[in-house]
Amino acid sequence: MRITVAHHSPASCQRWRDALARELPDAEVDIWGQGRAGSADYAIAWAAPAKEFFDQHARLKAFFCTGAGVEKLLASPVMPQTIPVIRLEDAGMGAQMVDYCVYAVLHWLRRRSEYDEQQRARVWKQLPAYDLPDWPIGVFGLGVLGLQVATAFRALGFNVNAFSRLPHEHPGIRSFAEQGAAGDFAAFMRASRVLIIIAPLTPTTQDRFNRETLALMPPSSYVINVARGGLLVEEDLIELLDRGHLAGAALDVFRQEPLPQDHPLWSHPKVRITPHVSAITLIGPSAQQVAEKIRRLERGESISGIVDRRRGY
Amino acid sequence: MRITVAHHSPASCQRWRDALARELPDAEVDIWGQGRAGSADYAIAWAAPAKEFFDQHARLKAFFCTGAGVEKLLASPVMPQTIPVIRLEDAGMGAQMVDYCVYAVLHWLRRRSEYDEQQRARVWKQLPAYDLPDWPIGVFGLGVLGLQVATAFRALGFNVNAFSRLPHEHPGIRSFAEQGAAGDFAAFMRASRVLIIIAPLTPTTQDRFNRETLALMPPSSYVINVARGGLLVEEDLIELLDRGHLAGAALDVFRQEPLPQDHPLWSHPKVRITPHVSAITLIGPSAQQVAEKIRRLERGESISGIVDRRRGY
Repeated sequence: MRITVAHHSPASCQRWRDALARELPDAEVDIWGQGRAGSADYAIAWAAPAKEFFDQHARLKAFFCTGAGVEKLLASPVMPQTIPVIRLEDAGMGAQMVDYCVYAVLHWLRRRSEYDEQQRARVWKQLPAYDLPDWPIGVFGLGVLGLQVATAFRALGFNVNAFSRLPHEHPGIRSFAEQGAAGDFAAFMRASRVLIIIAPLTPTTQDRFNRETLALMPPSSYVINVARGGLLVEEDLIELLDRGHLAGAALDVFRQEPLPQDHPLWSHPKVRITPHVSAITLIGPSAQQVAEKIRRLERGESISGIVDRRRGY
Repeated sequence: MRITVAHHSPASCQRWRDALARELPDAEVDIWGQGRAGSADYAIAWAAPAKEFFDQHARLKAFFCTGAGVEKLLASPVMPQTIPVIRLEDAGMGAQMVDYCVYAVLHWLRRRSEYDEQQRARVWKQLPAYDLPDWPIGVFGLGVLGLQVATAFRALGFNVNAFSRLPHEHPGIRSFAEQGAAGDFAAFMRASRVLIIIAPLTPTTQDRFNRETLALMPPSSYVINVARGGLLVEEDLIELLDRGHLAGAALDVFRQEPLPQDHPLWSHPKVRITPHVSAITLIGPSAQQVAEKIRRLERGESISGIVDRRRGY
């Protein structure tokens, strides 16, 4: 069996090659462009490689994507539609998403920006305490990562709403669904003080969070985006923050990355920005997961994480 | 049965009186100085009242303290040593301590000060990711609150050490104890990258964290104090931060409160200050707890939370 790594940087190609070779000692693992000619059985990459890659690797049994989102890969005009694309599932990303979101919410709830200001001004003043029932969390997207985030907030004592494609039943998490009751999306937005966007970017979710939908949230609400910039209309977010309807946003992803130097989000006083680091792919657990799936496929067994191209994730 | 409230502000006297009257409809609940003469059966206060209070209330069956620490109350020269003092146990404070400490650790681990700087400078740069095994948490004090903090960090995937008076056995939490093996305290400090001080202030814990003991921690360690300022020698902390041995501190309590305007901690770049707000007494659950203990005492049953004056908590 032959595996080829076509990652986005030479250093990570090397690390992936080494990790996969350790996990699958019987496989021949090479880096694209450095191995012998002819098609590999499996490919691993973060984004879609160039056309020459697919010309050479015409008979791939599976293409493993090492990011959490596959929208760019699916949009590649050179990738044959017949190659099965496999997503990473969690592999250490869930825990990172949890701590990113918990941190963001605690910063607001604990009024840490105000306390930081007070510290700079040497002011000792106790601000009114918070009350958890005032902070219902709304998790948009209940995949492997969203479910972990929802569960973690529940465990911390928050009320949690979650919106997914199909209705769901998770203890203590209130279900709203695309294919649920009419008006479920509006009800989800109205019931949530903090919106956590953690869903794939698809034609259905593109621009979902805009002037109209964000305005459904209660006054003084907050937005966290750890999914993809394309789900959130940034000008509309800024407008609602400026109007005072929204109280803050924690953004890890943007419509254009890196976020352009002159973008108004950088200096917005209610916005906290991180450069797409909420959940970093950990090569160790990710390579283990990919190797296990390759073993299963070689044995003719089924695997999870196969991307449905129509659905977009 | 008669209960008197001798709290630290008229507003909170009122709220405590109302809450207890709701919980114990058969009791006579008054505010000290506003009720009739003669001794009450139970008293509730945040700190020790004046001598006149104890002259009037000579036959108290119990004195309930509504803060998490009782060291000032026990030090009162006017309070008869024979009156049983009862501590609040959790009553919503544990969850607050958990989120205060989790927030502090995530701020460091996620390099949020650096990302905030980058945002101000409009810099898009991904910093090296963190690795949880590099962040063993050391919880000093394993009472009702400390145990919740230790358990929460464990649930988030951290390695957790805990130091207590007696050796303990909690799943996934490494035990170090005052009455454990010789050198256990030093071993606890050496094994912990983040020290969380959450123990009562007693003659045994006074000044426990000083130049010598803090230096036992690994380089680039962090300190959180949510207990009492008296456990930590502030000049020594500053010295170790300046030397670079310690990387940061999150302080909610201080040797003198309010922290004096000219105190060097206010402007220390590695220190985050909050004005004694990590866990605020919630009157609702606290009054429920006090009422339940009064009912048990009236029925002649045993209660938990009785302060051992020799031990100091």
